[in-house]
Amino acid sequence: MPASETIRIPAREGRGITVRAGDRVRVIDPEGGQVADVFAFAVNDPSEYHSAEHTRVHVGRLFPLVGESFVTNRRRPILTLEADDSPGIHDMLFAACDPTRYQGLGVDGWHASCQENLLDAMRQLGLERVEVPQPINLFMNIPVGADAVLGVLPAQTRPGDSITLRAEIECYVVVSACPQDLVQINAGKPGPIDVEITRA
Amino acid sequence: MPASETIRIPAREGRGITVRAGDRVRVIDPEGGQVADVFAFAVNDPSEYHSAEHTRVHVGRLFPLVGESFVTNRRRPILTLEADDSPGIHDMLFAACDPTRYQGLGVDGWHASCQENLLDAMRQLGLERVEVPQPINLFMNIPVGADAVLGVLPAQTRPGDSITLRAEIECYVVVSACPQDLVQINAGKPGPIDVEITRA
Repeated sequence: MPASETIRIPAREGRGITVRAGDRVRVIDPEGGQVADVFAFAVNDPSEYHSAEHTRVHVGRLFPLVGESFVTNRRRPILTLEADDSPGIHDMLFAACDPTRYQGLGVDGWHASCQENLLDAMRQLGLERVEVPQPINLFMNIPVGADAVLGVLPAQTRPGDSITLRAEIECYVVVSACPQDLVQINAGKPGPIDVEITRA
Repeated sequence: MPASETIRIPAREGRGITVRAGDRVRVIDPEGGQVADVFAFAVNDPSEYHSAEHTRVHVGRLFPLVGESFVTNRRRPILTLEADDSPGIHDMLFAACDPTRYQGLGVDGWHASCQENLLDAMRQLGLERVEVPQPINLFMNIPVGADAVLGVLPAQTRPGDSITLRAEIECYVVVSACPQDLVQINAGKPGPIDVEITRA
C-alpha cells in the first residue's frame, strides 16, 4: 500500500510540493465552506503551467469532469481529476486574489492573498519568478447566470469534502487556502486546507 | 477632426500597433463571419497585459459591456469597450489557436495560428518574448450551455460589423484574423480583418 502524508495548510496560507507522474494529491476542506486555489507548473520548464483556457478547449466545458485532465499552456495533461468527493462546484474563471484586489475592496495595508501564497511557495521551491496563472479554484462557487453575469457565492463544501488529483508529469503543485474574507466565497471566515500526498 | 488610418489584415495574419491613452482602435469584420483575436500589453512593462480572469472579476461578467474596461493582470484598465456595432457575441474563454491545437485537429505540417501571429507581431514591435494571454476573441461564438458545456459556433457578424476599443494607457495592441478553418468558428473560411486607428 503506498505511503501517504498529510500537510495541514493553516488558514490564509499556501504550500508547494513537488510530485511525480502517478502521485496523487487529495485536497481536503477539513472544516467546510473553504476555497482552495491550486496551481501546477512543469518541473522541467516552469514556463509551462496548467492553463484554464487550454483546459476549457480540451474538455469543451468550463471545468473538467472526473476522469478528465487539466492541460498546460502547451496542451499537455498535467493533472487529472481522479475523484470528486464534494458537491462538485468549482471555478476556473476568477483570477487569484492579490494585493490590488484587496486594495480595491478597501483594505488599508497588507492582506494575505493567493497570489502572494503562490509566489512564496514557489520561492521556497527555488523558483524566484513565475507567471501567475488563472487558478483552479477548488470548491469555489461562481455560477454563470443569465446574460453571463457571474455570481459570487459561499463554497458548498461540508467538512471533509475533497478532490483527488493525479499528476501526469513531474510538477510543482501549489495549494493556497484562500484568504478572502471580504466577499462571501469562504463564508466570510477563511479556514485551513489539508493536502494528502500519496506517492506512486 | 482626428485623422484615422485603416490597416487591412489579410486572412490568417496578424498585426501589431502602438497606441496611446485616448487612441481608438476599431476592429471591423469586412466580410462577416470572422473572429478577431485581440491582445494588449503595456508599453512601459509588457509583463503587464490584458487579462481575461482579472477582467471577469472587474466586471462581474464573462465579457465587458459597452462602457466597461478590460483590465490587466495588475487590475488596471487597458482598453475600454467604447462601442459595439455587431451582434454583441464575443468570447474570453478559449485559448488562442497554436501549432499544438492544429496538430490535435489532425493537421500535418505548418498551419497559421493566432499564437504565432501574436508572437510575430510583437517581434516586429521589438519584443522577442512575451506571455501568450487568454485572448479577447471578438465576434467568437462560444455559448455556455447547460452543465457548463461550451458550444463552438460560427461567428454571427455581418459584413462591416465592428467593435471600438479606446486605449486607457500606452499599449501594444495585436489583432489576429483567426486562421481557424477546422472548426466552424469562422464558418470554415477565414477572412480578413480591418483595423481603423484614430489618434486622440
